[in-house]
Amino acid sequence: MPDWESLYATRMAGVVASDIRERMKLLDARQIIHLGGGLPDPDIFPYEALQQASDRIWGDRALARTALQYAPSEGHAPLRQWIADDASAAGVSCGIDNVVITNGSQQGLDFIAKLLLSPGDTAMVEIPSFIGALRAFDAYQPRYLGLPEDSAEWDAGALAGAKFCYVGPDFRNPTGTTMSLADREKLLDLADATGMILVEDGCYEQLRYEGEPIPSLLTLAMHRYGDIEKVPVLHTGTFSKTIAPSLRIGWITGPRDAIRKLVLIKQASDLATSALNQMLLLEVIRMSLHTAIETGCQVYRERLHRMLAALDQHMPEGVTWTRPEGGLYVWGSLPEGVDAGRFAERALMEHKVSIISGAAFYPAKAENVRPATNRFRLSFSMIPSEAATEGVRRLGLLAREMVPILV
Amino acid sequence: MPDWESLYATRMAGVVASDIRERMKLLDARQIIHLGGGLPDPDIFPYEALQQASDRIWGDRALARTALQYAPSEGHAPLRQWIADDASAAGVSCGIDNVVITNGSQQGLDFIAKLLLSPGDTAMVEIPSFIGALRAFDAYQPRYLGLPEDSAEWDAGALAGAKFCYVGPDFRNPTGTTMSLADREKLLDLADATGMILVEDGCYEQLRYEGEPIPSLLTLAMHRYGDIEKVPVLHTGTFSKTIAPSLRIGWITGPRDAIRKLVLIKQASDLATSALNQMLLLEVIRMSLHTAIETGCQVYRERLHRMLAALDQHMPEGVTWTRPEGGLYVWGSLPEGVDAGRFAERALMEHKVSIISGAAFYPAKAENVRPATNRFRLSFSMIPSEAATEGVRRLGLLAREMVPILV
Repeated sequence: MPDWESLYATRMAGVVASDIRERMKLLDARQIIHLGGGLPDPDIFPYEALQQASDRIWGDRALARTALQYAPSEGHAPLRQWIADDASAAGVSCGIDNVVITNGSQQGLDFIAKLLLSPGDTAMVEIPSFIGALRAFDAYQPRYLGLPEDSAEWDAGALAGAKFCYVGPDFRNPTGTTMSLADREKLLDLADATGMILVEDGCYEQLRYEGEPIPSLLTLAMHRYGDIEKVPVLHTGTFSKTIAPSLRIGWITGPRDAIRKLVLIKQASDLATSALNQMLLLEVIRMSLHTAIETGCQVYRERLHRMLAALDQHMPEGVTWTRPEGGLYVWGSLPEGVDAGRFAERALMEHKVSIISGAAFYPAKAENVRPATNRFRLSFSMIPSEAATEGVRRLGLLAREMVPILV
Repeated sequence: MPDWESLYATRMAGVVASDIRERMKLLDARQIIHLGGGLPDPDIFPYEALQQASDRIWGDRALARTALQYAPSEGHAPLRQWIADDASAAGVSCGIDNVVITNGSQQGLDFIAKLLLSPGDTAMVEIPSFIGALRAFDAYQPRYLGLPEDSAEWDAGALAGAKFCYVGPDFRNPTGTTMSLADREKLLDLADATGMILVEDGCYEQLRYEGEPIPSLLTLAMHRYGDIEKVPVLHTGTFSKTIAPSLRIGWITGPRDAIRKLVLIKQASDLATSALNQMLLLEVIRMSLHTAIETGCQVYRERLHRMLAALDQHMPEGVTWTRPEGGLYVWGSLPEGVDAGRFAERALMEHKVSIISGAAFYPAKAENVRPATNRFRLSFSMIPSEAATEGVRRLGLLAREMVPILV
C-alpha cells in the first residue's frame, strides 16, 4: 500500500475541503434556508434560448461536427471575436488575440497564478478576498500580502515586490462593495510604481442594480496607456452569473503576449474548453444576453433590497453590514469579540440557516493581515425574498442572543 | 508597460507553442494530407444519440436546471456511479468515491502532477511519451527519469526516487504499442519496490482492433492487493476517443484518499466540469457506448490495416514501423542518422503531407534519455484510407530520396 502522505506535493499540505463547498452539498436539504453559497438562481437561466441554440447545432451537421471535435486551445474563434468586439465597444480596443477562453473565470484565476507565481513569490490580494481565488493561488505556493482596505495605506514602498494584485472592483465576493474611481486610479498608480500586474476579477460587473457604473481597471488602463498591449492588467470575465454556470465559459482579456502564454497553459492543462458549450453560449448571448442581464438585475435587485430591509428590521444594534449596489452578497459584521464561526455554526444547527463565516475569506499566513473573526457573508441570490427574510429574522434572534450586552 | 518576461513564473521558461497544435491549426487547409494530429474522426460521432439526449434534457425543466447549475466538483453523481459500476464489472471493484470527473484525461494528468510533484521531484515517464502528458507535468517542474524501453533494465535500485511513473499500456501515443502482461506485472513489482505511483493512461484502451485484451495495471493491482484503497495506481480514462472530444469528459479512478485530494484540486482549478456535458454524455453512453466503440473499432481497424499495407508497399528498405493492435498511431523509424525533423519539414513543404517528428515525444533534459532523432508518428484516424495511402506513397518517395544509400 503506497504511503500517499509522503508522496503528495508540498502544495497539498493543509489542503482540506472548503466549508462553503461542503455546505453546498447540503443544497438538497430542503429544510435549510440557504444564505451561504452564492449560486445564481436557476429560475432565470435562459432555457428557451439554450434549447433553440441546441436545436440549431444538432440540426446542422457541419455545426455539430465542429461542436464535438476538439476546439482550439485559445477558444472558439467567433466567441473570442464577440468578446473582443464587446470590449472594444466598451472602450477597450482589442482583438481576438487579446482573449483566451477558460472554464469559467475560476480557471482564468488558476491560469494567471500558474503564469506568474513561482513558489515563494508574492501575491497581493484584497482583504477579504474570494475564496476560490485564494485556493487557486495557494496551489502555486505564494507568500501573501494583503492590499490594505484603506487606500490611504497603499504605499508603493511597503507594497513592492508582488507579482500581481488580485482585486474585484465591482461588488466583489464576499463584501459586495465597489472600489471608487479614485481608488482604481490609485491602484493603477501603485501597479505603475511597483511593476506588478493587476488581476481584475470582473465576474459581477454586469450585475449592477443601482448607481453609476465605474470604468474597470482595464478600461482606465486603456485610457492611461492607449494600447492594450501596454496595460498592466489581466481581466477575467465569465458568463456564469449572466447566462448559466454549467456552460463553464469564462475568459481572460489582456496583452497579446501574456494571452499567448495563457493559451499554452490552457493547452497543457485540459487542451481546450468544450466547443459545444462555446457555440451554445455564443448563440445565446447573440440572442439574449441583454435580456438575461436585465432579468438577472431585476430579480437580484429586489432580493438585495428585501434582504437589506430585513437586516434593518431584525438585526440588533452592534451588527452592521454593507449596502452593495450589485453582485450577490452582503457582508456582515458582529461586534468585536463575537465569533462569527460560532454564529454560523449555531445558525445552521439551531436555526437551520446557512451562512458563511468570514474567516474563510482571508489568505492563510499573509504577512500584514489579521483575519477578522467577526464577519459573515450572506447571499441573496438563490432563494425567494420571503425565505431570505425569514432567514434574516432567525439570524437576528441569534444575534440578539450572542450580543446580549448591546440589546 | 509591464516587464512581462521578468514576471513570468520559472515554470514558463522555454514554454513555446507545440509543433503539433500549431500544425493542427492548418486543419482547414484542404490541400494537406493530415497524418499528423490524431483526432478522432467526426464522421463517427454519435450525433443522433446526442441530439436525443439533448432533447431529453431541454424537455424536462428539472433536468435542465441541474444541467445549467454548478455541478459538484467531484462530478455528476450518476456518471461517477456509472464509471464505478463499469470498472467493477471489469474486475476493479470500486465505488463512487473512487472516481473524479475531469475535463478529458488531459486534465486528469495535469491534476495528478499537481497532486504529486513539487519542483525538483522526479517523474518517471515511458520513452517516448504522449506530448500532452509531458507538457502537463512540465508545469510542476520535475526532474525526468525515463522508464527504459527494455524491461530487462527496470532495476529498482537505479529507478528509485520517482513520485510516479507515467505509462500508457494500451496502444500508447505515439508508438501504438502494447505493454505485455509480463511487463505490466514487472512494473507493479517496480512500484512496490520503489514506493512510486503508477499513472496509467487508459485513453485508448477501448480501441483494440485485434489480439486479446490484456488486463490494465489497475486490474492487475486489484488482483494483487485485493482492495482499490491499497493499489498504487491512478488510472485516467476518457470518452474523447469513443464518444466525442468536445464534451470534455474524462475521469480518474483510484484510492479514495487520493481522489478526495484530486477533487480539491479540481475545485480550486475550475470548480467543476460542465453538468450539461456530463448529463449528455451519460445519456449517450447508456444508449450507445457499445455501438460507438464497435463503430470506432471497425473504422479505425480498416484504416490501420490500409496504412500498414501502404507502408509495406511504399517505404524503402531501412524504414521500419510498429504494427499496433489498436489506438490511432503508427510509429516509424528512419535509418540512424536520417533526421526525422527534416523529413517532417520536407513532407509538409514539398509533398503536402503533415506528420509529427518524433523528437517532440521525449522529455526535455531527462537524465537517462537520449531523444531519438529518426522517429516519426503517423496517425490514421482522421482521413479516409485512400488519402492516407496517397500520403504514405508521397512519404515513401521522400524517404527514398533521403535514404539514398539504402535504395
